[in-house]
Amino acid sequence: MLDSTATPLKTLLRRRKPGYSLEAPFYTSPEIFAADMDVIFGHHWLFVGVDPDIPEPGDAMTLNIGKASIFLVRDDDGEVRAFHNVCRHRGAPIVHDYKTTVGNLVCRYHSWTYGLDGKLLAASHMGEDFDASCHGLKPVHVRSLEGLLFVCLADEPPEDFEVMAAKMAPYLAPHDLKNAKVAFEKDIIEPGNWKLTMENNRECYHCAGNHPELTVPLFAYGFGFAPEELDEHERKEAEDYDKLLKASHREWESCGFPSTLMEHLDDMATGFRTERLPLAGDGESHTNDTKAACKKLLGRINDPKHGALHFWTQPNSWHHFMSDHAVVFSVLPLDAERSLLRTKWLVHKDAVEGVDYTIENLTGVWDATNDQDSELVGYCQDGARSPAYEPGPYSPHTEMLVDKFCNWYVNRMTAHLGR
Amino acid sequence: MLDSTATPLKTLLRRRKPGYSLEAPFYTSPEIFAADMDVIFGHHWLFVGVDPDIPEPGDAMTLNIGKASIFLVRDDDGEVRAFHNVCRHRGAPIVHDYKTTVGNLVCRYHSWTYGLDGKLLAASHMGEDFDASCHGLKPVHVRSLEGLLFVCLADEPPEDFEVMAAKMAPYLAPHDLKNAKVAFEKDIIEPGNWKLTMENNRECYHCAGNHPELTVPLFAYGFGFAPEELDEHERKEAEDYDKLLKASHREWESCGFPSTLMEHLDDMATGFRTERLPLAGDGESHTNDTKAACKKLLGRINDPKHGALHFWTQPNSWHHFMSDHAVVFSVLPLDAERSLLRTKWLVHKDAVEGVDYTIENLTGVWDATNDQDSELVGYCQDGARSPAYEPGPYSPHTEMLVDKFCNWYVNRMTAHLGR
Amino acid sequence: MLDSTATPLKTLLRRRKPGYSLEAPFYTSPEIFAADMDVIFGHHWLFVGVDPDIPEPGDAMTLNIGKASIFLVRDDDGEVRAFHNVCRHRGAPIVHDYKTTVGNLVCRYHSWTYGLDGKLLAASHMGEDFDASCHGLKPVHVRSLEGLLFVCLADEPPEDFEVMAAKMAPYLAPHDLKNAKVAFEKDIIEPGNWKLTMENNRECYHCAGNHPELTVPLFAYGFGFAPEELDEHERKEAEDYDKLLKASHREWESCGFPSTLMEHLDDMATGFRTERLPLAGDGESHTNDTKAACKKLLGRINDPKHGALHFWTQPNSWHHFMSDHAVVFSVLPLDAERSLLRTKWLVHKDAVEGVDYTIENLTGVWDATNDQDSELVGYCQDGARSPAYEPGPYSPHTEMLVDKFCNWYVNRMTAHLGR
Ligand code: FES
Ligand code: FES
Ligand code: FES
Ligand SMILES: [Fe+3]
Ligand SMILES: [Fe+3]
Ligand SMILES: [Fe+3]
Repeated sequence: MLDSTATPLKTLLRRRKPGYSLEAPFYTSPEIFAADMDVIFGHHWLFVGVDPDIPEPGDAMTLNIGKASIFLVRDDDGEVRAFHNVCRHRGAPIVHDYKTTVGNLVCRYHSWTYGLDGKLLAASHMGEDFDASCHGLKPVHVRSLEGLLFVCLADEPPEDFEVMAAKMAPYLAPHDLKNAKVAFEKDIIEPGNWKLTMENNRECYHCAGNHPELTVPLFAYGFGFAPEELDEHERKEAEDYDKLLKASHREWESCGFPSTLMEHLDDMATGFRTERLPLAGDGESHTNDTKAACKKLLGRINDPKHGALHFWTQPNSWHHFMSDHAVVFSVLPLDAERSLLRTKWLVHKDAVEGVDYTIENLTGVWDATNDQDSELVGYCQDGARSPAYEPGPYSPHTEMLVDKFCNWYVNRMTAHLGR
Repeated sequence: MLDSTATPLKTLLRRRKPGYSLEAPFYTSPEIFAADMDVIFGHHWLFVGVDPDIPEPGDAMTLNIGKASIFLVRDDDGEVRAFHNVCRHRGAPIVHDYKTTVGNLVCRYHSWTYGLDGKLLAASHMGEDFDASCHGLKPVHVRSLEGLLFVCLADEPPEDFEVMAAKMAPYLAPHDLKNAKVAFEKDIIEPGNWKLTMENNRECYHCAGNHPELTVPLFAYGFGFAPEELDEHERKEAEDYDKLLKASHREWESCGFPSTLMEHLDDMATGFRTERLPLAGDGESHTNDTKAACKKLLGRINDPKHGALHFWTQPNSWHHFMSDHAVVFSVLPLDAERSLLRTKWLVHKDAVEGVDYTIENLTGVWDATNDQDSELVGYCQDGARSPAYEPGPYSPHTEMLVDKFCNWYVNRMTAHLGR
Repeated sequence: MLDSTATPLKTLLRRRKPGYSLEAPFYTSPEIFAADMDVIFGHHWLFVGVDPDIPEPGDAMTLNIGKASIFLVRDDDGEVRAFHNVCRHRGAPIVHDYKTTVGNLVCRYHSWTYGLDGKLLAASHMGEDFDASCHGLKPVHVRSLEGLLFVCLADEPPEDFEVMAAKMAPYLAPHDLKNAKVAFEKDIIEPGNWKLTMENNRECYHCAGNHPELTVPLFAYGFGFAPEELDEHERKEAEDYDKLLKASHREWESCGFPSTLMEHLDDMATGFRTERLPLAGDGESHTNDTKAACKKLLGRINDPKHGALHFWTQPNSWHHFMSDHAVVFSVLPLDAERSLLRTKWLVHKDAVEGVDYTIENLTGVWDATNDQDSELVGYCQDGARSPAYEPGPYSPHTEMLVDKFCNWYVNRMTAHLGR
């Protein structure tokens, strides 16, 4: 009756009904949000950016993961390092801008100076008993998977990142993201819990009614349907799509582009899924006219008709790699009811804006789609706030991946918190 | 000393001192606000609008009651129905605008479609085991009392609504609100707990010093005074008022307008009070010149000098019915320290703006009065925040109804929470 | 793992490590903020303004101390009185403006009327049993220390205010603040916990790198340094400064200006510190050109080269008294992460703006310095929010007073809360 009688998190986790959306507190409770930030965002690998965000030694990028402020910096050997952005003296941030280039790392408050390896190099007035070697910046685990940067805030990150990396590298390598550049990036704040943003990403049941731009290049049949509801014409279309998918996979794999479905969404700590899918229309890219947005293709690709390689990761990212460009998305929770969605569009590093591509054409489909999804996420947040909300059933044909996201979430929370 | 030692709600309820304002946490504590929303706003009849808000089949109106989002809709048989505005699939709202007209009710997210009776009519891709009959919209109790719409969120609403309805119908019927129209409506957010808004409404001790417009049509003596403080002139005025009141009641009742005081403010779950009072000056209406604001009179009234029928309800409304127009007020709590006050001015449905009435003249008195009251409510909220605040004594002559509001509140809370 | 396992305040106090900054919850936790407001701001003497804020009988000034709203008023005998700004009827504020002049004190809500001594003089409609003598305004302890106004919200204020007053009066008296006027005042909201604002004030380790204006009149050596880090030139400078300090003290004391260091920062409930320090350049004032900002000097001073008398108090103020003007600062916490810094610049009451001084020149140094400090305080607040923050070591040469502030805070909290 009063808030003090709120159901404990462990009970909510234990009684979660598979095939149904989560109970309301998972989307609204500040306490569960804090637990999410600890367990999920504090102990798993998170996608946070790309190698081309910080291409040169000294390039740095800051980032907030919940209450943690970190920065990534490319050191003098060309390696990416990550640190907590907190001076060991009295806690001031070391790097202030989102993206910048630094020499040494000098705190603005009292000028303590650290190297790019995090070591404390200078601190005045600290007296003769002061041990600088105990006051280096606190490191954060960071890995690059073919140009995709993942961090983990835990002391001991999940080890199966290596499994994902080994399996995914052949899929990603041909797009050669390390030799791409960020042509455009955009942050939007979605008015919903981060899990609603993820759930929305994991189904296309809503695409037909809400994404007029995205459904031009996308084949609806690639995202599930109830066969018993198809009329004769639709059944024919579905069969044609299935043939196209198989033929495309055969062709792409034969020229060295792994394409078939691989899915570990709820059976790994570092859960993921991938598949290369053919596109509709001219079949080249996620653009309004389905043609490549950039004349210069990525990596060693020379045929624009390479479909779209999709890469979904738990808990916070998805990626679309086309022949000409890639779009990468990361979700950074802000509070129980707001999430940052950060989208970056990448093209070959030698492509020239205005000559090889325009920002408008490159970003048109996903910029519009993100805004549409943001509104939908807000709807569900409104619903979750209502005392009348109760978990509803997922479609067995179009919302399987949403269900798997929830499975993964419940499993990981339970693994950390105990039953 | 720390917040953790906050006095429990039940203790606060038990030790409430009659004749005094409530202790500070009743006005400031988010926990008690949550209890209010559960007990008071979750289990009692609330005034939320008027039949003329949704005159035709398909007309719908949305509303937030705390965290609950509901909508009212007139069905094809002309009956008003109310539902939780939460899709049974993944919780998106069904109706998005404040007022709109709908055919069927189609969710924007995945197009689940409901009838005006709340039944789920269509949901694609849900598989053959899905039972649509279990996934209709959740209904909310709704009643029209001579055009005034009340809802109750509880499964089992207080039964004494029928008692109030039977007693009040003869008072209200002559004004025929169902054949009126909403000429104007306005929301303001008062910077105070909903109980302060209600307490402010329940006394006119503050009128003389704060309401220059309202005190033109209102007789001060109608709202209580300390007889021992009157000088000779005032005593004469008070006696004159008393005679006028009795004469008016006799006259109005003789032509079929029930007018005498009826009060059940703290002895019913559905507490209310009513009385028809004469007006000062020309005695016609709550206007700056005390004359009728609308040439066309309400219902079957043909003499503009009908005074003002006041109707106060617990926990959240008050109403003034004059010969020419009615003003109805509902209070919708937003959080512990903010409340929405929604005011609607109604005239005969055939009255023509600019010909029979102007908005400015119609709304002048109460628009100004609401703003003045809002400021006063904010003062009390400021006071309640202070550690120096302690409950102060109500005037036995001018604040009896405030005391009864508090009695009702404490009784209802205690009835639900136990001692 | 979840917030519910937050370390208790007493444990945090007990395990505080001397010589290190406080643990993060002291800067971020709303619960500890509430305890601070109760123990520190509810039971100690606070600097809140100056006699010249309310020079004449009837002059009043309002103020918020956490959730408490109070006002100071000069009564008809010229004495300063302070009251809770809460009507004893239903809690409305009595004085609404920051600074105003009143006759009697009349509540706007129902016109209860109080005298400048707080007594309830009139309250209508309250009936014959009402005892006005029990419903006077609640008084707040207030003291003037040579023109500096301190209040204490507790029933029994720390008695050692008298000790501080006796010791400080001879230092302050020559500047004769009661015959000064407030030439300018300014509020800024610092984005940090009040303790970070105080810690920032208690060291000049950050001055060289952050305060280009302030370091013109200030001698860096006056605020500590590590002798082992000085080069030969710097050692000479430090020795010269030391000689100047001693010579200045001798000279000033000989003409009746107490100047030597007196420090009770962590050994009194009413902790304080004072010292008169020589200034650099022309040595006259805290101005961009180190010359006096006001032609008319304060009190009985006739030589502009009087250095700066610094007066620091726990928990919430610092003051700089020069020959020509004084700058006084008070810190009023707003919430766990925001603090109001109120700065007032005072000159002789007969000085004429535009003739004897300009606001721009008078306020230039400290207005800029405050903004710089506010940004630095925000940095530390950002750091304290991070899970990677841990208490860092204070410099034994330049941050001793920060350490003493923390000692005082921990001692006072422990004294009130028990171990
Ligand atoms: S906080 Fe970084 S040097 Fe002091
Ligand atoms: S949320 Fe309404 S149809 Fe899916
Ligand atoms: S609240 Fe002050 S007179 Fe009523
Ligand atoms: Fe979408
Ligand atoms: Fe009023
Ligand atoms: Fe500073």
